[in-house]
Amino acid sequence: MLTINPKDTQTPELHSYLLSAVAPRPIALASTIDEEGNPNLSPFSFFNVFSANPPILIFSPARRVRGNTVKHTYENAKAVKEVVINVVTHDMVQQTSLSSTEYDKGVNEFEKAGFSMKESERVKPFRVAESPVQFECAIRQVIELGSEGGAGNLIICEVLLMHIDESVLDANKKIDQKALDLVARAGGSYYSRAREGFFEIPKPLRNKGIGVSGLPESVRMSSVLTGNDLGLLGNVEQLPDPADVDKFMKDKPEIFGLDRDEKHKFAQQLIQNNDVTGALKVLLS
Amino acid sequence: MLTINPKDTQTPELHSYLLSAVAPRPIALASTIDEEGNPNLSPFSFFNVFSANPPILIFSPARRVRGNTVKHTYENAKAVKEVVINVVTHDMVQQTSLSSTEYDKGVNEFEKAGFSMKESERVKPFRVAESPVQFECAIRQVIELGSEGGAGNLIICEVLLMHIDESVLDANKKIDQKALDLVARAGGSYYSRAREGFFEIPKPLRNKGIGVSGLPESVRMSSVLTGNDLGLLGNVEQLPDPADVDKFMKDKPEIFGLDRDEKHKFAQQLIQNNDVTGALKVLLS
Repeated sequence: MLTINPKDTQTPELHSYLLSAVAPRPIALASTIDEEGNPNLSPFSFFNVFSANPPILIFSPARRVRGNTVKHTYENAKAVKEVVINVVTHDMVQQTSLSSTEYDKGVNEFEKAGFSMKESERVKPFRVAESPVQFECAIRQVIELGSEGGAGNLIICEVLLMHIDESVLDANKKIDQKALDLVARAGGSYYSRAREGFFEIPKPLRNKGIGVSGLPESVRMSSVLTGNDLGLLGNVEQLPDPADVDKFMKDKPEIFGLDRDEKHKFAQQLIQNNDVTGALKVLLS
Repeated sequence: MLTINPKDTQTPELHSYLLSAVAPRPIALASTIDEEGNPNLSPFSFFNVFSANPPILIFSPARRVRGNTVKHTYENAKAVKEVVINVVTHDMVQQTSLSSTEYDKGVNEFEKAGFSMKESERVKPFRVAESPVQFECAIRQVIELGSEGGAGNLIICEVLLMHIDESVLDANKKIDQKALDLVARAGGSYYSRAREGFFEIPKPLRNKGIGVSGLPESVRMSSVLTGNDLGLLGNVEQLPDPADVDKFMKDKPEIFGLDRDEKHKFAQQLIQNNDVTGALKVLLS
């Protein structure tokens, strides 16, 4: 392992490691205004939801590593305690990147990026009309995490109103995650288009599975089964009982005579076909 | 648009909208211990990096919406102000899901999920040996965002040591983002495998592009060019000058006679082939 002690590491280098390791990060396209009412728009990937009740989103316009200056968004958030956070979809990603250009104070990044300003209902900053989900927020608190270049500034936002475009809603008025087509940031110049990598894992059993520790040692120590296989096998309420195993095996003469690794490969096939119970029966036979 | 006022919305419903809209979210597989030294392991997607100097990660084990109870991770973080945050890769995702089972206090989720406990160097909680990036952290502060079910609890973590497995490092000892193969959470039961959706966007011009607002109206109002096309076109330092446009067009007799939409389609092809300058010349011809 490479071990990095932040105390012995230059900030730009540490920053780069953190951005690659904590990813993909959702993007807040944050719209603010200054005290004169000039709009500002900038994307931030030090961002997430942290609470549903109260509904809290947090993003961080950090102090610049180079020069230890602060961003207009931070100044605006301190002066006018309101922000609209807009989500970023694949259709908007090039304009969003362009809006991260460090234009001079007073330059309207809505115009520079070619986004449309839409009036908000409860706050003064504008919404990004092109974004299918817009959060009108009051800024509850700003927490400075340090005073050097690279220090984060937590902008703690309480959602006052959430707007969702009908085009990303399904028949039950829930968000269709694929239709929403969000993008996120990773290290270097990488973005990730979320839906290209979607897969589903049902919640683990509410009445508590046996866990990997509840599997026989021959299964846990398998040289064939992967961690993901074991995770799926451990998410059952109980192991099949021997009578069921015998019955199952009667219909599977092809399994008799297989050695352990071959049996495990057979079971792995069943797991890949979503037959976890069948796989357990083979493994216990 | 569907407009949601949190004050008029039940927490489970609001929670579901927030989780679909703010995504994909990176996952912290958080290892803590209680005052008796019993290990606990649980994944959280209310998580991100927020600062490089000091290096700060924040995650939130929120109060449960159902029953307004708190999680063992929160109790442990309050009692023993240390945590190891482990990143979650595609190879670990089924075991990670299993570790989110709400086992009773004192049950060791490392064992239940089949993960290996590795001693830390600077803190008492164990590392997840299977995770290729592990952050040993001191907990600076815990901020409760509310007292009702669904309220977040910010665990503000300062990174003391970061460990990176050599297998995810490139020749320059930087993290190879594709090799790391991180997964993230989205709404419902969706996870996203980040690298399946990777694409790159170079940082916008440091010396400030002309922006979409610097493009001619016929281009900005195009019925062919998309927002992404405009974002790329606006990220140039200046428009090509008319002499260059004329010269370029001399070699492209096939463009004469095209109508505006056809020209825009031709330019769009050039953008897709990464020839933004060529596209601008066609658009200005």
